[in-house]
Amino acid sequence: MQIKKEKKEIVWQNSQVTGVDRQALLGYQSLVLWFTGFSGAGKSTLAFALERRLVTHGINCSVLDGDNVRHGLNRDLGFSPLDRSENIRRVAEVARLMIDAGLIVITSFISPYREDRAMARSIIGAEKFFEVYLSTALDICEQRDTKGLYRKARSGELPCFTGISSPYEAPEDAELSIDTSMRSVDACVEYLLQTVINHCSLK
Amino acid sequence: MQIKKEKKEIVWQNSQVTGVDRQALLGYQSLVLWFTGFSGAGKSTLAFALERRLVTHGINCSVLDGDNVRHGLNRDLGFSPLDRSENIRRVAEVARLMIDAGLIVITSFISPYREDRAMARSIIGAEKFFEVYLSTALDICEQRDTKGLYRKARSGELPCFTGISSPYEAPEDAELSIDTSMRSVDACVEYLLQTVINHCSLK
Repeated sequence: MQIKKEKKEIVWQNSQVTGVDRQALLGYQSLVLWFTGFSGAGKSTLAFALERRLVTHGINCSVLDGDNVRHGLNRDLGFSPLDRSENIRRVAEVARLMIDAGLIVITSFISPYREDRAMARSIIGAEKFFEVYLSTALDICEQRDTKGLYRKARSGELPCFTGISSPYEAPEDAELSIDTSMRSVDACVEYLLQTVINHCSLK
Repeated sequence: MQIKKEKKEIVWQNSQVTGVDRQALLGYQSLVLWFTGFSGAGKSTLAFALERRLVTHGINCSVLDGDNVRHGLNRDLGFSPLDRSENIRRVAEVARLMIDAGLIVITSFISPYREDRAMARSIIGAEKFFEVYLSTALDICEQRDTKGLYRKARSGELPCFTGISSPYEAPEDAELSIDTSMRSVDACVEYLLQTVINHCSLK
């Protein structure tokens, strides 16, 4: 990526609010739950169900969803490896801004490349990055085909489709793995809620 | 801007948490305070002082600062009119994601073009967009020259510098105008705090 020459004139401005101040205000520490997995693995379903559960529990949070972000911030990006990488970079930067504001952030992106997820971990900071691998097998995701995308990918209508015509590199060291074909949505959400509660030192 | 072909395959995913749910959780409505004005007009100083004041008052908020965002999300952008426009577009999209999460957002960007600020208003939604024009005169900003940038711009070292070699289009319909040469930082912050309290229906 090109870093512009004027960069040296750009001076970091410090906030007068620390992470400790935020935690005192909100009662919990911020965190990014980074969901990764095939299309149809259950990322968006779980992300939005968990958001609902967290808010009911008094915890403010935000879902950054792949499809939604591609309608807004990343509408200029496609699905080539370079564009996928830039997609993940921008989302990681936004997640970092949000955890600085004290939010629990749930990201829902296929994020198929290990290198890109490592970049996200680095941008966000390892101590705030919690990788959740939705390990639901490809054939089950294809059977579900909730959006009809696998059918289109098989017919060649959709190029660069993860699992069919584009690779998926499974995590080797995710903080959590969930196979959504083995548990109900409610069970997954309760498990994730407890994980957030344990990890974020809620009062 | 190019919108990629795969766009039609991208389906908006609805959150199960409404703005009303967020307001019930937090006790206030979200809002973007969009600061605009010359370099040296006091944008970052006021933004961070207001952030500190709001958090002390129990209101969660986030500052999106021009220099900071150019270290992260927008590090690939320079200062040409096209890059400035993309800078503002991305910041407006991030601000929208943040107000959807219930935050008060304070943006601190020169944002010199009317068209770009109108774009930001449109992305964020007019009812959540509160434009704050820091109307401090150019000669006063140049006298302050806190970062030494005007000197560099006058010597030709910095191209495309707003007010010297690049235009600034003053707002015609800002929700608020503040000349920071006429009031203390504390007075400005108190005024802005009251504005947020009145506008966001705080309990």
